[in-house]
Amino acid sequence: MSTFGELFRVTTYGESHCKGVGCIIDGCPPGLPLTEDDVQPQLSRRRPGQSALTTPRDEKDRVTIMSGIEFGTTLGTPIGMTVPNQDQRPHDYSETDLYPRPSHADWTYLKKYGVKASSGGGRASARETIGRVAAGAVAEKYLKIVAGVEIVAFVSSVGKVELPYLEALEDGQPIGKDFSNFLDHLTREQVDADVTRCPDPATSERMKERIMQAKEANDSVGGSVTCIIRNCPIGLGEPCFDKFEATLAHAMLSIPATKGFEIGSGFGGTKIPGHLHNDAFYRKADGSLGTVTNHSGGIQGGITNGEHIYFRVAFKPPATISQAQQTVTYDGESGTLAARGRHDPCVVPRAVPIVEAMAALVVMDQFLIQQSRQASATLLAPLHTPHHVLQAKPQPTV
Amino acid sequence: MSTFGELFRVTTYGESHCKGVGCIIDGCPPGLPLTEDDVQPQLSRRRPGQSALTTPRDEKDRVTIMSGIEFGTTLGTPIGMTVPNQDQRPHDYSETDLYPRPSHADWTYLKKYGVKASSGGGRASARETIGRVAAGAVAEKYLKIVAGVEIVAFVSSVGKVELPYLEALEDGQPIGKDFSNFLDHLTREQVDADVTRCPDPATSERMKERIMQAKEANDSVGGSVTCIIRNCPIGLGEPCFDKFEATLAHAMLSIPATKGFEIGSGFGGTKIPGHLHNDAFYRKADGSLGTVTNHSGGIQGGITNGEHIYFRVAFKPPATISQAQQTVTYDGESGTLAARGRHDPCVVPRAVPIVEAMAALVVMDQFLIQQSRQASATLLAPLHTPHHVLQAKPQPTV
Amino acid sequence: MSTFGELFRVTTYGESHCKGVGCIIDGCPPGLPLTEDDVQPQLSRRRPGQSALTTPRDEKDRVTIMSGIEFGTTLGTPIGMTVPNQDQRPHDYSETDLYPRPSHADWTYLKKYGVKASSGGGRASARETIGRVAAGAVAEKYLKIVAGVEIVAFVSSVGKVELPYLEALEDGQPIGKDFSNFLDHLTREQVDADVTRCPDPATSERMKERIMQAKEANDSVGGSVTCIIRNCPIGLGEPCFDKFEATLAHAMLSIPATKGFEIGSGFGGTKIPGHLHNDAFYRKADGSLGTVTNHSGGIQGGITNGEHIYFRVAFKPPATISQAQQTVTYDGESGTLAARGRHDPCVVPRAVPIVEAMAALVVMDQFLIQQSRQASATLLAPLHTPHHVLQAKPQPTV
Amino acid sequence: MSTFGELFRVTTYGESHCKGVGCIIDGCPPGLPLTEDDVQPQLSRRRPGQSALTTPRDEKDRVTIMSGIEFGTTLGTPIGMTVPNQDQRPHDYSETDLYPRPSHADWTYLKKYGVKASSGGGRASARETIGRVAAGAVAEKYLKIVAGVEIVAFVSSVGKVELPYLEALEDGQPIGKDFSNFLDHLTREQVDADVTRCPDPATSERMKERIMQAKEANDSVGGSVTCIIRNCPIGLGEPCFDKFEATLAHAMLSIPATKGFEIGSGFGGTKIPGHLHNDAFYRKADGSLGTVTNHSGGIQGGITNGEHIYFRVAFKPPATISQAQQTVTYDGESGTLAARGRHDPCVVPRAVPIVEAMAALVVMDQFLIQQSRQASATLLAPLHTPHHVLQAKPQPTV
Repeated sequence: MSTFGELFRVTTYGESHCKGVGCIIDGCPPGLPLTEDDVQPQLSRRRPGQSALTTPRDEKDRVTIMSGIEFGTTLGTPIGMTVPNQDQRPHDYSETDLYPRPSHADWTYLKKYGVKASSGGGRASARETIGRVAAGAVAEKYLKIVAGVEIVAFVSSVGKVELPYLEALEDGQPIGKDFSNFLDHLTREQVDADVTRCPDPATSERMKERIMQAKEANDSVGGSVTCIIRNCPIGLGEPCFDKFEATLAHAMLSIPATKGFEIGSGFGGTKIPGHLHNDAFYRKADGSLGTVTNHSGGIQGGITNGEHIYFRVAFKPPATISQAQQTVTYDGESGTLAARGRHDPCVVPRAVPIVEAMAALVVMDQFLIQQSRQASATLLAPLHTPHHVLQAKPQPTV
Repeated sequence: MSTFGELFRVTTYGESHCKGVGCIIDGCPPGLPLTEDDVQPQLSRRRPGQSALTTPRDEKDRVTIMSGIEFGTTLGTPIGMTVPNQDQRPHDYSETDLYPRPSHADWTYLKKYGVKASSGGGRASARETIGRVAAGAVAEKYLKIVAGVEIVAFVSSVGKVELPYLEALEDGQPIGKDFSNFLDHLTREQVDADVTRCPDPATSERMKERIMQAKEANDSVGGSVTCIIRNCPIGLGEPCFDKFEATLAHAMLSIPATKGFEIGSGFGGTKIPGHLHNDAFYRKADGSLGTVTNHSGGIQGGITNGEHIYFRVAFKPPATISQAQQTVTYDGESGTLAARGRHDPCVVPRAVPIVEAMAALVVMDQFLIQQSRQASATLLAPLHTPHHVLQAKPQPTV
Repeated sequence: MSTFGELFRVTTYGESHCKGVGCIIDGCPPGLPLTEDDVQPQLSRRRPGQSALTTPRDEKDRVTIMSGIEFGTTLGTPIGMTVPNQDQRPHDYSETDLYPRPSHADWTYLKKYGVKASSGGGRASARETIGRVAAGAVAEKYLKIVAGVEIVAFVSSVGKVELPYLEALEDGQPIGKDFSNFLDHLTREQVDADVTRCPDPATSERMKERIMQAKEANDSVGGSVTCIIRNCPIGLGEPCFDKFEATLAHAMLSIPATKGFEIGSGFGGTKIPGHLHNDAFYRKADGSLGTVTNHSGGIQGGITNGEHIYFRVAFKPPATISQAQQTVTYDGESGTLAARGRHDPCVVPRAVPIVEAMAALVVMDQFLIQQSRQASATLLAPLHTPHHVLQAKPQPTV
Repeated sequence: MSTFGELFRVTTYGESHCKGVGCIIDGCPPGLPLTEDDVQPQLSRRRPGQSALTTPRDEKDRVTIMSGIEFGTTLGTPIGMTVPNQDQRPHDYSETDLYPRPSHADWTYLKKYGVKASSGGGRASARETIGRVAAGAVAEKYLKIVAGVEIVAFVSSVGKVELPYLEALEDGQPIGKDFSNFLDHLTREQVDADVTRCPDPATSERMKERIMQAKEANDSVGGSVTCIIRNCPIGLGEPCFDKFEATLAHAMLSIPATKGFEIGSGFGGTKIPGHLHNDAFYRKADGSLGTVTNHSGGIQGGITNGEHIYFRVAFKPPATISQAQQTVTYDGESGTLAARGRHDPCVVPRAVPIVEAMAALVVMDQFLIQQSRQASATLLAPLHTPHHVLQAKPQPTV
């Protein structure tokens, strides 16, 4: 349904051509400084029309916070947010509407609901993600303040053009110096330095060529987004079903056009022998434990271990293409679905803030749950029996 | 937490060395013929000790249905199921317990909970999956009866040994004849014909070699499991957050040792141009629409479209290996964690019924939800306005 | 939190002085004719300023449907609704703000959240109920169309002035002719015929006197609202925890200022001997079973039985009174909280549409769940064993 | 459904004649000392056959903890508990089975599920409450240790025999000295001193007479249970829908045979003028605020305020009576349902531990949620703006 999270609960609404889109955040901690200015930047990064590589529509996407704040501070009550749609007219019937668009949601929405929005993608449109991005910005602000959490996503592949480290990882090679450097230091500013949102200049040049090639061919091209979460508190994740990576996978696969998710070593890790894949422990300067390698991607047993979390999300090539397609109508009549207008040949650059937002929602919700786990355990006396020699107080999560 | 699903809700309990493991299924439809004999086969397929390739422990794993049935039929009330543990003794303290095992859950459980089970994996042990498999068997029986749903998983890779089609798909090639044949016809009997649970004899031979090599090296090896769902009703999935593939990803990444999930064309699909990736529609013999290709993997817009669903799950090499490892103790002292006993060098064959079970839980829960969507919409009058010319009654899901 | 329901899920937002209040309905069946005109009437019935008996503020409370409908029909996607606040200015600090108002939420909100809205009741204000009433109107429209459900609430007591039947019921007497007549025939028009919303003219006169007495004394007075649900389908309710009356009680006690709930014979029923309290069955004209008496209030074993559902909700006297009160400041200093302005001495007439709305949300959600239970059971073969001789197909709920 | 709670989540299973009943507790804090001996006493208090006033069956009801503890301490993992049924034979078909028992769940279960248990109440039997009582005992133990919470319930009325204070409260009188004394000091030992579980000797004598009268008349009699919660931390409750009293009402109305719930002044409070009903504040010895009176019953705005919580639950007379009843068969044929055996004429004494258990589950779950709210707010900087002059850090809940 349209709600995500247990204690930090986000509910979204809105289709492509209704009056507006938005969300309600329920469970945001009180006392957080918050204004529209905290939310707008990620909405603007998500907005189409940012470069020659993307669709030229200019949706303004100005957010209004309806409730839940006073004098620039959250009250702990639900935060309603709304963004008006620029084009609110449902669409008149036309010839092309006889065809369910291939690999779109037209046909399945009609089958599921018995009715579908007359224009664009309706609820399956990418406009639906505005509510997510707005909510993610609030979560990020909180996490940044209380735990220094940093979430940075970037484009790691476009079609067959991949960042070099990615090819190695897919083949089960260890993480190299370049990717380690990204894990430790990459910033959103560096990511935004290029329109592709790929932080490696040589690769981003090749990506641009690949995207322009798709554009000129009236075709589209997919890709993948890698995301890094730094300073995620230890202990997040709720086994056995709501393991951290399970809720993360849920979040990512709920983004339109996604086809895959991998955490840490991922599919490539299946090719690494166990004795190399295991992440041995070492003692860190502050006395706590870290892992020498990080094939686990910051999660062990479904619980965050304090190392960098990293994961990758696959996006299929956009289904809307500017060329005619042989297919059939809703009634099964063969025909040609004519091309309409010009479309975004590659959406992965715009997917970057959406991936970040969903990651923030997962961390935030799991963080709030773990705050309860930790506090409620700490209220009990420490354990002393010899059988629990290894026990310790729960780790403060910040 | 330990509950999965909304209307078909499964809650599991149990660690490796407690009195028993099991589950409660809440929301199973009444009137389903059900006895322990329906549940036992998948538990036995999950059981260790089935071949020379796996660990020789012989856990009996006999299930008892405690409640929810009478005279062999479900009552619609919660179904309690329990499987006793053979070894119920929590373990005595030993030297090796000073070390958190690398890439295990020891350290993160201790950090999260402040205490951990003294023996084995505790709740992070694979014994936890018994409850899932038992519940999945009930879901499967229902789905088979009312909709002819078939769920068949198999091992598609072990280390770098892959089914030939898989290599092609990873590179973005279209589905070939071999995989198409699997999609249409593969059975569990064919899968079980070889101990590797890989249905291609040439590949399974190479897999066996790879596993024996790991065993002899006191090492472990990972792999992947591909799963096919046939005859899944149209219209399942609850956008925007509970898209079918999102809940499926959640389910799969909640299985111990998983690192990745991909649906349909998956990561390979990011490399296919849009005009080839799009699944054009055609009219089927019964007048309904199908897709010519199936890069979507049976799901569009987060909703099942009636085509075969297929997905793949990555499993890391088991963290327990029969060789010593350099690491540190809980207190940060460097040392060597000695090897203990002999362990399963490769778990993917045993993961097959677990993947099937979780897939069944997802289909079942989404099916029950869609029964409500469909029935409640059908009670309303059909739509007649010209603007909804494309509308139809919701598709009966069976 | 701020979400109610499982399949028909309502999430509300808004405080007394933010930009607006509203809700998102997730899970509304597609194909329902719906415009703002369906929602406005109940909002207007809830609105203050309707008579000399209530507060003279005139809040316009015009609702806008932001999403989820097209050409006047629901799409099955989330329905966002918003109502602007007339007075959006958080309030300037004043002397009276030093005091937590007795029996208000000021002190507990501050203790729970560490911050509270500067003006009025904030989230604890009755304005919060606007989202509920808007959502309830949508549920009601659906239920009316598909099952002829009728929900009619009325004021049954103000202070010690009670409808005659109520006094009898409190003492454990059987339902008399007058109340039976209400159960069968009472309409909202009849309820609205008097400003008290008490449908018995003699009693309503006495109620008006009681309210005017409170008004003149700068005091307030409580009361109770009785609600009738007719034509509720059989089989709604989800034992053991989500029995129909349990979710109904949850819904009612979530309304501000409520202190009690009773279903059917309620507290008075504890005084009736079992052999008189039991509702014997009889055969109805259509061959199905009804009950001769209805102490059960339409629910047995937590499941609706097709008889009229009736229940009563207690509302305390409003905490805001127009007289000075001896109390202490937040810091514990004794003093007098001065009276401010004129206030509504009795809120039960305005509570009527709120009770109806929450009742509609309960019926709607349980109806959607039961649609799934029924449909999924019906797909299985009928039972034939002699042990189940009494079994039947689940009753179609409409 | 059969799950209660969000962070302390209890799921129960079991009918009257299956192999056993029990529950899974998910989310119990780790480090809590726990054995069967902590759970058994409340199960024994719930057990039938404790006195001449109750049914003579002797169900042993010995509980086994299956998982979630090690060396007598909780691990933070799910706690499975099971109690075998003594009589596990589903019942043979007999003449009396042709009749749905009046005011029982027979008919509604059959209508909802299309099948019902052949014997006794099935899932609607009071045996279902064993899982609740077991889980409640665990919650109580935790709450006692960390916050000194005390939960004491007692029988406040049987038929028309009421504790004197109750009659006064029903008429809207203030709380008198006797009830105040109960609020402050009543213990379970005092409650158990008499078989009626009414702590006032004069009243309990009259109750016994009333129960014996019902027994001799082959009739039954209802009553009410009042429950006190002491030392409940401030700040529990999740507005707007999950107010503390709303979840409490949900919990209580989910207990079989309940018909009403009132918190604090309840229905009687509707008769008290506002200026008397308001609970003025005073400064307590420790500097915090208390209320002079407590009509609010310890809750304001849906949030606990630190005063004693008290509420009352109505139980109808048991539907099973030892006399013949005129009614109709499932097929609508008129006839006489013959009396069978001897039955418990009054269940309220046995309901006492069930009410306590459900109260404990509500406090525990809301406590765990508030631990998160409080901890997550405390991590933010204190507020300093003049507009928030009244703000404070969230109150430590223990």
